[in-house]
Amino acid sequence: MGVEKFGPVRVGLLGVGTVGGGSFDVLARNQAEITRRVGRRIEITRIADLDTERAERVAAGRAQVTGDAYEVVRDPQIDIVIELVGGYRIAKDLVLAAIDNGKHVVTANKALLAVHGNEIFEAAQRKGVMVAFEAAVAGGIPIVKAVREGLSANRIEWVAGIINGTTNFILSEMRDKGMSFDAALAEAQRLGYAEADPTFDIEGVDAAHKATILASLAFGIPVSFDKCYVEGITRLQAEDIRYAEQLGYRIKLLGITRRRDEPGGPRGVELRVHPTLIPAARLIANVEGAMNAVWVRGDAVGDTMYYGKGAGAEPTASAVVADLVDVARMLTADPDNRVPHLAFQTESLAADLPILPIEDVHTAYYLRLRVADEPGVLADITRILADARISIDAVLQREPARGEAETDIVLLTHRTIEKQANAAIARIEALPSVLTKVTRIRLEDLD
Amino acid sequence: MGVEKFGPVRVGLLGVGTVGGGSFDVLARNQAEITRRVGRRIEITRIADLDTERAERVAAGRAQVTGDAYEVVRDPQIDIVIELVGGYRIAKDLVLAAIDNGKHVVTANKALLAVHGNEIFEAAQRKGVMVAFEAAVAGGIPIVKAVREGLSANRIEWVAGIINGTTNFILSEMRDKGMSFDAALAEAQRLGYAEADPTFDIEGVDAAHKATILASLAFGIPVSFDKCYVEGITRLQAEDIRYAEQLGYRIKLLGITRRRDEPGGPRGVELRVHPTLIPAARLIANVEGAMNAVWVRGDAVGDTMYYGKGAGAEPTASAVVADLVDVARMLTADPDNRVPHLAFQTESLAADLPILPIEDVHTAYYLRLRVADEPGVLADITRILADARISIDAVLQREPARGEAETDIVLLTHRTIEKQANAAIARIEALPSVLTKVTRIRLEDLD
Repeated sequence: MGVEKFGPVRVGLLGVGTVGGGSFDVLARNQAEITRRVGRRIEITRIADLDTERAERVAAGRAQVTGDAYEVVRDPQIDIVIELVGGYRIAKDLVLAAIDNGKHVVTANKALLAVHGNEIFEAAQRKGVMVAFEAAVAGGIPIVKAVREGLSANRIEWVAGIINGTTNFILSEMRDKGMSFDAALAEAQRLGYAEADPTFDIEGVDAAHKATILASLAFGIPVSFDKCYVEGITRLQAEDIRYAEQLGYRIKLLGITRRRDEPGGPRGVELRVHPTLIPAARLIANVEGAMNAVWVRGDAVGDTMYYGKGAGAEPTASAVVADLVDVARMLTADPDNRVPHLAFQTESLAADLPILPIEDVHTAYYLRLRVADEPGVLADITRILADARISIDAVLQREPARGEAETDIVLLTHRTIEKQANAAIARIEALPSVLTKVTRIRLEDLD
Repeated sequence: MGVEKFGPVRVGLLGVGTVGGGSFDVLARNQAEITRRVGRRIEITRIADLDTERAERVAAGRAQVTGDAYEVVRDPQIDIVIELVGGYRIAKDLVLAAIDNGKHVVTANKALLAVHGNEIFEAAQRKGVMVAFEAAVAGGIPIVKAVREGLSANRIEWVAGIINGTTNFILSEMRDKGMSFDAALAEAQRLGYAEADPTFDIEGVDAAHKATILASLAFGIPVSFDKCYVEGITRLQAEDIRYAEQLGYRIKLLGITRRRDEPGGPRGVELRVHPTLIPAARLIANVEGAMNAVWVRGDAVGDTMYYGKGAGAEPTASAVVADLVDVARMLTADPDNRVPHLAFQTESLAADLPILPIEDVHTAYYLRLRVADEPGVLADITRILADARISIDAVLQREPARGEAETDIVLLTHRTIEKQANAAIARIEALPSVLTKVTRIRLEDLD
């Protein structure tokens, strides 16, 4: 049996903040259950944190504590290093040093992988070690495993995910309670769903890190965060959420990546994060609060969805510890026969699937226009859209209040190419009866 | 690179019905994409089917066809055998013969594994080969992988799934269109969602096979289909679906397995398939039509859910081919270090977690009573429940039509032990003002 045949796997933990502490706790609490699964013990024997007192509290005598992470990374006794330091600079140094010392790495650091993943995976490949990162995308949901292994028979076509809990909480509050963005953000901060500086979340950067990783796993392309289109939720108005609702849609911040190779069109991958209208009847539209969900379409499996907590100490620890189990199991496999970091063999990462610029994205639109309440306005607008060959799916015109000279027109369009939409919107904004800039939110039917 | 380092993996396919044909097609169609993932080719080189003409049509010259499956199972060139023959007898013989010949096995045969899994896994363990069965539960949804690997850090507490598309389609039709069970079944048969003989689906047997497998994966216990409580949907009345709706619930056929070890209570595992009321607000309550979804609760990850198509040629093929990829990757791993068949090391399968009899199940209830419209009826009923220490959560009393002497009372109870509910129901049925047998449907809040 495994327990006798293989010795324990020794792990060094770098960083004992929320997720680090959670990972230590989960592994300690479920040690018996996990050993029953793996057939050998997985033990965190060393912990490094600048705050050694905090580290000692977590370790409680069960692991050796140091303030110097490099000591752990170089320790010949250590098989796997868990990097939970966060950020780009020190984390990158530590991960590369760990790899250089022949350690396998488990990390939850989405920013690091989205930006420096290619370099890190290449170093790992050279050294024949694994870098596991289930916790980097959608917390406890095993979405990396699902895309990389569970759906490996498929040509993946689409991935669209609610992959940032903070913004989904804010959008849920705005819809449920008719709150403004600012009020909902303050509520999220009060409840601990948003950080004091929420920029990374509300501007979509965190979701973009995760979408970048998902795109690589789905399509076998190098990580390319710099080419991801990123638009956050800070400019969303309560009235747009209300109008969307009246038309049968919900607005979610989605991370979307999609293969494009229709005949005559551009060949490449869309990679974008932005507020998105989706039909209220879709299951993913009903993912509320701080929950995460990722919808994946493959050519064989059709539509699948994965739902759960995307953040928090123990949900993220669930993914970190599952990665430890995976790495422990793959230790005896030939390095060339393991699951590749980005789902596809390094030599097979597609060079001919570029990330398409946002102007080439193919999507539908919600357009809200502030117009003078005059005859012929709607006719002028629909003429411009018809000239641009953009079909209209629905029109909502608010009845102006008595004595009011302005009103709102909301249009839902069919799919078109973004640059055509841009040109038509510019023409619409030039109409004298259109009083302000057009509010434009992308729409995906996911059907 | 893998492609050069390792030769192709040769696969023999037994049975080219819907799923077999789909598996051959998916593998052929996505050969390039799959080879990019695995780093070596996976080729179905031999096909066996009694209907050799059908097999020749599928193979179209790309694989060698035979009418004798044993020829394939014994072929020294074959590394992996896909068993899609179905049923218990021949399939079992073939799987054991394949194992005996040192072949790895991929199967979609839930009935075979739920009934003979222990024997099959034991034989595989002895021979050091793998038996992969992602396709046996919930079709294309990678739920076996999620429970066995993705959530390996967790002490799993609950699994509850809509794991039979036929019955979910029927229940969706009954609710949407107010149809009777018989009418909805006829509609399902007309559309190809139900077979000519639908017994296995509508009586819950198919769901019970899958729930049995999920229980073993979640809790590390031997498969024990004979101890699974099975109740189908054939006796469900349209009015119960309507009353449930009025109370904020949906009725789904759930396969449920749950760990029980509260202090003072019995220690073991609940394993049951039955119509279940769940709050309409839960995401899983909104899984409609023939779709499947499995909800899993772990102590670290919290609630997760996995959604997709549970049947059909290509969704099932997606799982079959993903298993081929997994087996191909694990070929170079030490057999004792691979993912164990039932998620836990064979020697660690729990002997002290018995499947609890249905009388010990802890659940809430929907009770519908046909009563005489007389004063004091409700008081008598609630007194009996109070005596049995069963709390009432909601009461719905239908206003009798003019001149009508009978009416319906619907009660939702809190959780109790099934044998206490049985005793109370027997006392209620003995009341002279209670005119018929009590309709009882179990209820799970999943919160």
